[in-house]
Amino acid sequence: MKLKRYEVLADEITASIQAGTRRAGDRLPSVRQTSASRGLSATTVFKAYYLLEARGLIRARDRSGYYVVGKPKALPPELEAGAPAESRRVDVDVSDRVLHVLQLTMRRDVVPFGSAFPHPSLFPHARLARAMASSVAALDPWSSVDDLSAGNTRLRRAIALRYLADGVQVRTEDIVITNGALEALNLCLGAVTRPGDSVLIESPTFYSALQSLERLGLRAIEVPAHPREGIELDALARAIDTHRPAACWLMTNFQNPLGSLMPEGKKRALVELLAARDVPLIEDDVYSELYFGAQRPLPAKAYDESGIVMSCSSFSKSLAPGWRIGWVLGGRYADRILRGKLSLSLSTSAPSQAALATYLEHGGYDRHLRQLRQTLEQQRNQVMEAIARHFPPGTRTTHPDGGYFLWVALPPQVDALAVHRAALSLGVSTAPGPIFSVQDRFRHCLRLNYGHPFDARAQDGLATLGKLIARQC
Amino acid sequence: MKLKRYEVLADEITASIQAGTRRAGDRLPSVRQTSASRGLSATTVFKAYYLLEARGLIRARDRSGYYVVGKPKALPPELEAGAPAESRRVDVDVSDRVLHVLQLTMRRDVVPFGSAFPHPSLFPHARLARAMASSVAALDPWSSVDDLSAGNTRLRRAIALRYLADGVQVRTEDIVITNGALEALNLCLGAVTRPGDSVLIESPTFYSALQSLERLGLRAIEVPAHPREGIELDALARAIDTHRPAACWLMTNFQNPLGSLMPEGKKRALVELLAARDVPLIEDDVYSELYFGAQRPLPAKAYDESGIVMSCSSFSKSLAPGWRIGWVLGGRYADRILRGKLSLSLSTSAPSQAALATYLEHGGYDRHLRQLRQTLEQQRNQVMEAIARHFPPGTRTTHPDGGYFLWVALPPQVDALAVHRAALSLGVSTAPGPIFSVQDRFRHCLRLNYGHPFDARAQDGLATLGKLIARQC
Repeated sequence: MKLKRYEVLADEITASIQAGTRRAGDRLPSVRQTSASRGLSATTVFKAYYLLEARGLIRARDRSGYYVVGKPKALPPELEAGAPAESRRVDVDVSDRVLHVLQLTMRRDVVPFGSAFPHPSLFPHARLARAMASSVAALDPWSSVDDLSAGNTRLRRAIALRYLADGVQVRTEDIVITNGALEALNLCLGAVTRPGDSVLIESPTFYSALQSLERLGLRAIEVPAHPREGIELDALARAIDTHRPAACWLMTNFQNPLGSLMPEGKKRALVELLAARDVPLIEDDVYSELYFGAQRPLPAKAYDESGIVMSCSSFSKSLAPGWRIGWVLGGRYADRILRGKLSLSLSTSAPSQAALATYLEHGGYDRHLRQLRQTLEQQRNQVMEAIARHFPPGTRTTHPDGGYFLWVALPPQVDALAVHRAALSLGVSTAPGPIFSVQDRFRHCLRLNYGHPFDARAQDGLATLGKLIARQC
Repeated sequence: MKLKRYEVLADEITASIQAGTRRAGDRLPSVRQTSASRGLSATTVFKAYYLLEARGLIRARDRSGYYVVGKPKALPPELEAGAPAESRRVDVDVSDRVLHVLQLTMRRDVVPFGSAFPHPSLFPHARLARAMASSVAALDPWSSVDDLSAGNTRLRRAIALRYLADGVQVRTEDIVITNGALEALNLCLGAVTRPGDSVLIESPTFYSALQSLERLGLRAIEVPAHPREGIELDALARAIDTHRPAACWLMTNFQNPLGSLMPEGKKRALVELLAARDVPLIEDDVYSELYFGAQRPLPAKAYDESGIVMSCSSFSKSLAPGWRIGWVLGGRYADRILRGKLSLSLSTSAPSQAALATYLEHGGYDRHLRQLRQTLEQQRNQVMEAIARHFPPGTRTTHPDGGYFLWVALPPQVDALAVHRAALSLGVSTAPGPIFSVQDRFRHCLRLNYGHPFDARAQDGLATLGKLIARQC
């Protein structure tokens, strides 16, 4: 089949990037320039540029045209799926270990590869402050009563509109605002589990999920997750049929700690699998705005026809850390979740909700997100290049296309907890693999945070880590 | 013993108030005037006025001298303690009934005697907005990490200073900031109970306590509360020895719904009784700033030598409803509570915390509170006078000296739920007695909120209520 004109142009530019002629950060000629120089219509050039964007090769920056996306010069080999493991049901008792690790990673004088948070400078504090100042002055005193318990209507509408823009059918009244995604996730757990029940989670999994299970007296069933595509559906089906869990708690988009992204078709299959077995899905979707690809990945909720998916998200990773504004789409459990919210914390901070509503209504969020994604992608490349340079052979990492976590599998003889302790004493934090499992898996793994500026301190920190790891090989 | 000169002066003025010569709202002559006219030193006059203030007869208003405190012209007879009842352990299943009642009371077009909240106009929104605007602009972006999970240090210090001013020894680091007092109370429950445990509560009790017990799978033991002095200690001791509860959840100051105030000596005895039996006390102390007497009542925490008291409070009733800022002093359970906070909601809204810290540091809170207390006291009088006028004989009420709730015992044949429904259809809300018990007690009781302006609508509302009740007698 003959290529269309815009495809020909896109292929030419692709070749120039692959050959290194155009390099990361180079600006493409403007649409008008290319249109004139190549004798093509502006529409054709636009279509070529859109295609290149969809291929992940170029990216638009506000008011300054298209740039070649940076790709790492050298990559550590990609981590592949491990051997299948049998899923067991186990009691959860991780709090001590997790707390100990977390407390050590929160000090500002430590290089924060172990941190759970991106760098505070990445967020639009001045604009948020202006939105807060104007909205709090105009805040209706009755909002403290009117917004009980589901939350500020303007904010819920603004969130619904963002789902609608992606084609996910969400109504304002489907949304309950919560104190961050963590409260939302806990409300979901409370809605569908009783103490002693089992909950199916990914392995490795975010340690906060483990802490929540522990607090609620729930048991965990770890199901292996593929480093690139998320939880293994065959293993998931087997584990459900064996253990009859009360719920499944997953991160479909840029999973913490793997950075894996479940393909859309797999999400659909996941939801169908769970619906057929009548197992509710608690979806933690806090990283989906931080995609490096052409478009925001959808939540599993987008494929939910029977209402079994409870989808939780927040602004904590993408806009306003510390404001603690999250939300949940409760599906068929919405009433129970709202009732839980009423008796758990009544409602969510009125001024913070109003301020975020004002910020979202006045625009600027998408511009901020583009900038944020670009920064994170660049930092991912820098960290991956440094790992390729400094870490010993046998190291493999995930190749995440979003979020700000990298999962590093060190040579199998390396003890990640020992590396973690030694690195901390040298001023570098890491998140050691065992805190992401109740079964003491991942002893040779680390989660590294690339959400902080890759400055000289960070470079030295990765070199230090590499030396500490090499010493154990 | 011969009276001192200031006592003679105070007794004279007391007599003039009791005789009706000086009436509610009358301004006393200034200290200088009285000093000149009576030939007494200013110190002596001051001491006389302080004594009158301690007697609850006069009150200082900012920069405008001393006023005679309003007393109701006619009072409904005071509710006395009921017959002792045996405490039973029961499962909690109240959510449906409570939710139904609450949803109906939240409409703005209804006279809000059933509301749980004071009128929004009672709070200093403009000053809070200014504190928010200035503090959010200056908010350290790192606060989202530094304040994990215990909360903003400036705010915790400001709260500690308020306890210290009353002689309660509290350190900044003893305080964990929460999403309102309700989250604090839930964290305390989580720290000391397991599903299936029993918790000892007052009867009648605040329905949110019942909802929390229900959500956590806990059982309730209701112990009768004296309408003026709070929970009966003999009955409490018997119930503990019979049922071995995991915890006790009480409101010592201006209990919701009774408005009862536990005398200081009884608080001390309560804490000793619980300490001797090793039963943790979860204290809900959200109304203590709303006292009409001479000084703020102390929390039971003030008498806690062994660390068994977890004391919870918030700014939701006294300063900033809707901001959802509360706190807890965790005593010996502080570590468990902090860990629970970390896994339940991570931390509390950073801008709201910073703004309240700024407001508290810049002063104005005590002035606001004086005004608030005066307004509430006046409204209490107005509501009690109207009840004495409109409600049928046999009606008794508590005579609360703080907070904004009045507990009304109607003649025993009256069905409060029927009154509630009939009144709602006429645009008047009430909180019917049965929602304050898991044992379906208080069928002839109502909780009325006097935290709203006593306007013509409110007057008509009470007259309507009185007619509906009389019809059932």
